[in-house]
Amino acid sequence: MRAVDIIRKKRDGEALRRSEIEAFVAGVTDGSWPDYQTAALLMAIVLRGMDADETAYLTRAMAHSGTILDLSDIPGPKVDKHSTGGVGDKTSLILAPLAAACGVVVPKMSGRALGHSGGTLDKLESIPGYRTALSLPEFRAALAAIGCALIGQTGEIAPADKKLYALRDVTATVESIPLITGSILSKKIAEGIDALVIDVKCGRGAFMKTRADARRLAEAHVATGAANGVRTTALITAMDVSLGRAVGNALEVIEALETLKGNGPADLEGLSIALAARMLLLGGVTATLEEAAARVRAALAAGRGLEKFRQVVERQGGDPHVIDDYGRLPAAPKRTLVRAPRAGYVEHLDAELVGRASMRLGAGRDRKEDAIDHGVGVMIQVWRGEQVRAGDAVAEVHYREEARLHPALELLQQALAVGDAPPSPHPQILETVE
Amino acid sequence: MRAVDIIRKKRDGEALRRSEIEAFVAGVTDGSWPDYQTAALLMAIVLRGMDADETAYLTRAMAHSGTILDLSDIPGPKVDKHSTGGVGDKTSLILAPLAAACGVVVPKMSGRALGHSGGTLDKLESIPGYRTALSLPEFRAALAAIGCALIGQTGEIAPADKKLYALRDVTATVESIPLITGSILSKKIAEGIDALVIDVKCGRGAFMKTRADARRLAEAHVATGAANGVRTTALITAMDVSLGRAVGNALEVIEALETLKGNGPADLEGLSIALAARMLLLGGVTATLEEAAARVRAALAAGRGLEKFRQVVERQGGDPHVIDDYGRLPAAPKRTLVRAPRAGYVEHLDAELVGRASMRLGAGRDRKEDAIDHGVGVMIQVWRGEQVRAGDAVAEVHYREEARLHPALELLQQALAVGDAPPSPHPQILETVE
Repeated sequence: MRAVDIIRKKRDGEALRRSEIEAFVAGVTDGSWPDYQTAALLMAIVLRGMDADETAYLTRAMAHSGTILDLSDIPGPKVDKHSTGGVGDKTSLILAPLAAACGVVVPKMSGRALGHSGGTLDKLESIPGYRTALSLPEFRAALAAIGCALIGQTGEIAPADKKLYALRDVTATVESIPLITGSILSKKIAEGIDALVIDVKCGRGAFMKTRADARRLAEAHVATGAANGVRTTALITAMDVSLGRAVGNALEVIEALETLKGNGPADLEGLSIALAARMLLLGGVTATLEEAAARVRAALAAGRGLEKFRQVVERQGGDPHVIDDYGRLPAAPKRTLVRAPRAGYVEHLDAELVGRASMRLGAGRDRKEDAIDHGVGVMIQVWRGEQVRAGDAVAEVHYREEARLHPALELLQQALAVGDAPPSPHPQILETVE
Repeated sequence: MRAVDIIRKKRDGEALRRSEIEAFVAGVTDGSWPDYQTAALLMAIVLRGMDADETAYLTRAMAHSGTILDLSDIPGPKVDKHSTGGVGDKTSLILAPLAAACGVVVPKMSGRALGHSGGTLDKLESIPGYRTALSLPEFRAALAAIGCALIGQTGEIAPADKKLYALRDVTATVESIPLITGSILSKKIAEGIDALVIDVKCGRGAFMKTRADARRLAEAHVATGAANGVRTTALITAMDVSLGRAVGNALEVIEALETLKGNGPADLEGLSIALAARMLLLGGVTATLEEAAARVRAALAAGRGLEKFRQVVERQGGDPHVIDDYGRLPAAPKRTLVRAPRAGYVEHLDAELVGRASMRLGAGRDRKEDAIDHGVGVMIQVWRGEQVRAGDAVAEVHYREEARLHPALELLQQALAVGDAPPSPHPQILETVE
């Protein structure tokens, strides 16, 4: 089976066989396919697409390019959640301990911030001492002991994805539903999970700008998960404005802790509970969604999510005192306010621009090798639809360097739209695909 | 201007600017674009296409990646011919000296055989001593002295094409009208010609199988030539059966010499005269096509084409005695006949299969590094439409090794179709695009 024949077949719009896809993934993994042939096939996939079978074969082959965890000896359903990436999205920090407190085993491997959206690993690393790089035996031991671990992908998990992603990034072949699906689900399948909840972000601050695109991505994930033995449900959720008030690593950890303490903003608490409830339902912990949501709410009210989070932090070497003393978290030395330029209603506070502002302050990265400043970020002070007077504070910027402040302020001013009438309210959960 | 942004733009179906195309070709030439980015862009070009302007910019940038010959100090119009590749196509050996004998300067750089179609260089190298690798100063001196030279591309001519072609070959990105046009015309423009005749082969033995594809390729060549200051006419000609009777290097040289002596098969003589006449017309030697054809016929009848060919061979170090003594050319030691399996009319003698049979005998190459056996080949004994009896010879195979004979015989038997009624006659020149 020659690489050039496989490329030609996809170029001509034909569906690839399972053996051809396996040859491709094996060639990428062992380096026998040169990058130029891989790049040509990736572009052909972007432009010609892949059907459901091809996407399932691709995902399975990528998952099997490395270690597949077998967690069957740990009791309880193993369920994870994945988000396609939003601004201010710290739900993982809340729902993972909450679901674990309700009897779900949550083997969570997360990624880092890239572009305007944040990454769970970077947020966790705000906590002094927290180790995101557990070995697979340490990961397994943590799951057996406390039912929850939050770590980064190890090199043993889906190495084909790592190679493909690096190449996609420099060949303009990121934007492809089968390639995105393969990338996300191969890593999740390798975690050894039974079920998965996908939060497909949709809107101006998300990768998927339209409902139709978000639905296609959600459907591809649900079908590909099922084809690989992982029960998968996708929620399509709004990402036009950022989630909660905090954008930036330590700021988001504080907001997640406040939410676990029962003091979280309604949008963040609502979405965290909805996603955790889906995890319980898919894991068979409850028979109905209503029952699952009630169970999660009860755990939250009893502080059992916070308690589980404390166990996770301790287990992974972090300082658990941060939970009660936010002064132990990194903080930016300076603050300044962004003010409303006129009176009216907050029509919009564009999530992508807020995310980019936070990135400019140093909270995110443009390139993988960039360092993160965990203390900086933005605290949004108003909600969409809220009435403001001219000069009212709409956001507080936590910053370190003046040189980084100014471009961030410009983006924030651009992000804010104040109008004469309140905007019509938007639902947070747009659709469920299962 | 980042490579990834140029790739993304073409991926999304946008037209590239001249500066973007120039950055791409410069990056390929100096190696600053890694092969994987080039491969991704090539695939995007194959699937998204390029408009006339983009194709012209690509061609110009590729031509200017190396030396552009300036032949303006040599008197007379400089006109070349290019064929997209056929089986038994030895017209270059006939029309180049004929056109030169009529006052056109013919600076002909040719390629080698690849796949089932032959290459002018390999045919010429049948002639003992003939040097196809002249330096550019030697090439120029030959043109100044005798008005015609037949050589191979030197490394100074369109180096971007050499790199792109090597990559296209292994990434399934050969089949693209803008890329083919850029490849062919960049090398022709670099020859310093005023005008060009393109013979676009169309049919079962050609790269372009359909009239519509052949016409698109012809139109792209004519427009791109014009955009780069080279008056270009394309003839779309039939390539269902091979041209003339001879397929194989030395066998084709003999047939070309016979044609220059006035004893050529009608199809080969007819096409050679038609193409040479177009060269005269485009070169402004005559005002009408009829006049040009008459001039070429007169030169042929007077033996002036043969005399010019003798000068070319002498000038390039070849043994001119081969012209009068074919025994000095390489010959295969063994011969065998292919016979008609039944009585009837020769309905077809598939050019591609005949070409592949000749290649199997050793006359062509599968890969660039394969060696050529100049003596072997096939002499077709019948014309399409001819009536045969069962057991009549339809082809004589000139071979060296038994192991190579058998697969060749199988292909020839497959190539031959004998039916009950004569096929309808096909015109040779299907269309002129100018």
